[in-house]
Amino acid sequence: MEEKSIRVRVPGTSANCGPGFDTLGIACTIYNELELTLREAPGVEFFITGEGAENIPQDERNIVWRSVRYLLERAKAADRFQGGIVRMKNEVPLSRGLGSSATAIVAGLKAANVLVGNMFNRRELLQFATRIEGHPDNVAPAIFGGFTVNIMNRGRAQSFSFLPKVRLKMVAAVPDFFLSTRVAREVLPDMVSRQDAIFNIGRSSILVAALCRGNEFFLRHAFEDALHQPYRSKLVPGMMDVFSAAKEAGALGATLSGAGPCLMAYVLERDHCAEKVGQAMVEAFRKNDVEAKYLVLNLDTRGARIINE
Amino acid sequence: MEEKSIRVRVPGTSANCGPGFDTLGIACTIYNELELTLREAPGVEFFITGEGAENIPQDERNIVWRSVRYLLERAKAADRFQGGIVRMKNEVPLSRGLGSSATAIVAGLKAANVLVGNMFNRRELLQFATRIEGHPDNVAPAIFGGFTVNIMNRGRAQSFSFLPKVRLKMVAAVPDFFLSTRVAREVLPDMVSRQDAIFNIGRSSILVAALCRGNEFFLRHAFEDALHQPYRSKLVPGMMDVFSAAKEAGALGATLSGAGPCLMAYVLERDHCAEKVGQAMVEAFRKNDVEAKYLVLNLDTRGARIINE
Repeated sequence: MEEKSIRVRVPGTSANCGPGFDTLGIACTIYNELELTLREAPGVEFFITGEGAENIPQDERNIVWRSVRYLLERAKAADRFQGGIVRMKNEVPLSRGLGSSATAIVAGLKAANVLVGNMFNRRELLQFATRIEGHPDNVAPAIFGGFTVNIMNRGRAQSFSFLPKVRLKMVAAVPDFFLSTRVAREVLPDMVSRQDAIFNIGRSSILVAALCRGNEFFLRHAFEDALHQPYRSKLVPGMMDVFSAAKEAGALGATLSGAGPCLMAYVLERDHCAEKVGQAMVEAFRKNDVEAKYLVLNLDTRGARIINE
Repeated sequence: MEEKSIRVRVPGTSANCGPGFDTLGIACTIYNELELTLREAPGVEFFITGEGAENIPQDERNIVWRSVRYLLERAKAADRFQGGIVRMKNEVPLSRGLGSSATAIVAGLKAANVLVGNMFNRRELLQFATRIEGHPDNVAPAIFGGFTVNIMNRGRAQSFSFLPKVRLKMVAAVPDFFLSTRVAREVLPDMVSRQDAIFNIGRSSILVAALCRGNEFFLRHAFEDALHQPYRSKLVPGMMDVFSAAKEAGALGATLSGAGPCLMAYVLERDHCAEKVGQAMVEAFRKNDVEAKYLVLNLDTRGARIINE
């Protein structure tokens, strides 16, 4: 009976990055690992440890396994491999805005793709992952690593990944409650003012320019947003206080990570203030009766990768 | 009696560049030259040749002279220099969307600044010019040259200028009618859909990334816009036809230049198709009963400059 195994590691991600709503995404040095075994015999077993293990479905609804099945069907290998084993070791907090579902999707696709002989390249995996997730801004950095700019063009995701010329550290303040992306979407208005749209177009563009060219001055105003954070602040108690605390402690700026509730501050590596920023963010959350922890992260530069074959 | 003269040359500009509404602007190799003489005695004389000479006011309303006065007042030199001579040689077509008013403002400020001993640096001239013009996206490239990303931050203009890593040529199709910026503003809705805002955030960001990093692939979708061109197309007969003709002739994309009516196509220098694109654009205008000429332009890399002292 045919049986194959592979291990992959996929980074967590932070989408939007302030002004780049549904556009920008960054890969961080926090990882979920998947060891996937595919078998001819039907039936799937799950062994999940780490973040959110108790809340992850261990049946056909499991997003890793659904992504594995998606790829096997595209590869016309769904009959050849009808079952398997999913072993996950998760560092990425669940439903916090650090891209845990994108990480799971990309892990399933990547692992299954290797086991069918790398039938698809990364651009094709991006299309699959975007279709499963619904938007590219988390799955793209999970696949490519680095800082990504993502657009949808006539139904296809296009992602440009680059490594910033500014050495940044990210400080994620992770509150101890979940926030569903659906709820965070529902508070957004369908119509926005032209002025607010221009606000974000300018800041997203200058953020990309400053990162590409290595200009620190412009980064200090580039993380601001008018299109989603003001509406979502009521879902994350103390959000604006935490932003202020991060900046007072030396951060360039702070943003809602994806749909939240995690808040992400950006600091210059050479300012050596990441720990101080993290403590200030947690303290500001606490003053708003929110328990939180902080994580100091670097940019993941490689994206989804095979650990061994 | 004190009398001082200076000559400056200032590039024409194209704002918005498609998705970067009120944000992006580029300096082009088409110039207005100003020779400014300042005198203690009141009274100003005008000698204007070239584009639009017959339509430019030759009195206190003249925008060059108003900008000269603005700077002299900031420099507390308005009494010392009460009059002068304005000699202009204009290449930039008037009221066509190639930044002729920004060029005039920057010329007046720059020339007067030199004559008061360069009291202000370029960042300060940017603030003055933005206040006179009302927005930074034409005056910034006129001052700095290159490709600029511009935001307003708490009343101050901030502009990041860079030289793209892709060698581009610009083809401007200039119709033989004027379009006032006021009229072109009035057709725009105050509210836009979130989806259209995201469309432009993504494309403006990916345009900047592709130019900064020298990626030609992404430039092919990066000049699209959903926020202003669709509404303004009724003011420029044949606009969409001209865009299609430009792309069929080999352009990466085509945009409404500023508030129009000039249309600007972007082509890769190494494709050697600028003349063909220009002819196709003029022909498409003609089929819509619009007479037009075309100009093949390069990127101006220096911005406003002194010609001799």
